[in-house]
Amino acid sequence: MLKYVEETNVVRITEDGRETTKASVIQEVPLTIFLNGRELVTIICSPWQLDHLAIGFLAAEGLIKGRSEIKKVTVDDTRGVVRLKLAASGGLAEELIFKRLITSACGKGITFSSAADIEGLVPIDSGLTVSSGDIFRLVKEFQKNSPLYRETHGIHSAALCSSEKILIFSEDIGRHNAVDRIFGRCLLEDVAVKNLFLICSGRISSEILLKLAKGGVPLLVSISVPTNQAIRLAVNLGITLAGIVRGRRMMIYSHDWRITA
Amino acid sequence: MLKYVEETNVVRITEDGRETTKASVIQEVPLTIFLNGRELVTIICSPWQLDHLAIGFLAAEGLIKGRSEIKKVTVDDTRGVVRLKLAASGGLAEELIFKRLITSACGKGITFSSAADIEGLVPIDSGLTVSSGDIFRLVKEFQKNSPLYRETHGIHSAALCSSEKILIFSEDIGRHNAVDRIFGRCLLEDVAVKNLFLICSGRISSEILLKLAKGGVPLLVSISVPTNQAIRLAVNLGITLAGIVRGRRMMIYSHDWRITA
Repeated sequence: MLKYVEETNVVRITEDGRETTKASVIQEVPLTIFLNGRELVTIICSPWQLDHLAIGFLAAEGLIKGRSEIKKVTVDDTRGVVRLKLAASGGLAEELIFKRLITSACGKGITFSSAADIEGLVPIDSGLTVSSGDIFRLVKEFQKNSPLYRETHGIHSAALCSSEKILIFSEDIGRHNAVDRIFGRCLLEDVAVKNLFLICSGRISSEILLKLAKGGVPLLVSISVPTNQAIRLAVNLGITLAGIVRGRRMMIYSHDWRITA
Repeated sequence: MLKYVEETNVVRITEDGRETTKASVIQEVPLTIFLNGRELVTIICSPWQLDHLAIGFLAAEGLIKGRSEIKKVTVDDTRGVVRLKLAASGGLAEELIFKRLITSACGKGITFSSAADIEGLVPIDSGLTVSSGDIFRLVKEFQKNSPLYRETHGIHSAALCSSEKILIFSEDIGRHNAVDRIFGRCLLEDVAVKNLFLICSGRISSEILLKLAKGGVPLLVSISVPTNQAIRLAVNLGITLAGIVRGRRMMIYSHDWRITA
């Protein structure tokens, strides 16, 4: 039994009839984030590395820009609590942080119709190019990388890659969380992402694209499909968006020059 | 070209090389809900029947219990706005509604460890039984029901069923939204769900289970897998949870007596 997998009693129905057996299911926990002593938000997630997730969540919301803004991080794995204390020089006043977070955690702030509507976002300036061969190889590795997926089929993955290899691999029951974890770890470990790219297992909506734009990653490869708004944002924000990677086939929806032969 | 599908320019890479072509992608829009004249929340969704989604969203959050509480609904499809005016006798004071919605739209209020922690929820009392044969037949029909999925692969579905047939079918780019749309329409049209069941295309987390519990649906069938907390809630709330339906096989995670041979 893998860690973070739970065995549960099930009744299995097959052509041969009905039998009681066991099945492996993925664990889900609530994570509550406290910011400067104040309860901010609770999200449903996977139970590991809650600090990466909490910090990535706040970074994706634009509330933390760099590690220097974080004064202290305390993780209580048992209770599912991460407490963050921001340095006084954090830039945003506390009330503003709460106001903005409630706004965007509820899905607001994304009522855009062009990149100009997205506060503070400018097109990504990165000359990164990656060959399609490297992408196919790394996606294949990415898909083999998750024993939890093979065991439970209940998990999403994300990976930050150079053209040579997967540098950071993350998993979570939520596809948004899997991406937030990558950015959280990058922030904590001062990883520069401007010449790296991201692989995701899930579908790409505008919300995921905005996370990349805020994080400054110039290329996103998804196993799945994007929405029209995700494509529009990618075009406007200078991000290369590729999807439906299967074997040695893929579709490129924007700025295809970054993916070379 | 189907409605709600957009044609986009893509570069397709195959073993034969690189070519510029067209692809069909699903549309995404923001929906902003105003409650009694006050802007409440914006969610990313599919562009149709925004009234069903808005009302289902509020119902799933426990903010509307019945149609009589709704005084007026105005839908502006072009701007993606639904305005709801609740009757003064709506029960909850406006401030309380806003407080609770912000809480749960952000994923809060789900820090439970047992059913007792979930405010106001009692186990579902329904003697509904459905044969596995009827479930297999309806899931097959459910999976054939979406031209949008076949065209774009970017959509989730949900269906409210009797043991005879699919009564209400809904689709949305978000799996939560697809379920909310069902409950929104049921509320608007006074559909009693106590002896009906729901089919969903997506994975089942505790959040989806809570929607069923609040809506009063006793049986959930998913094409995909549940998390451990979704199973725990289903056990505690008297809901039958079945998953991984493939052909004539399925797993039943709780209260299997409702699914007969």
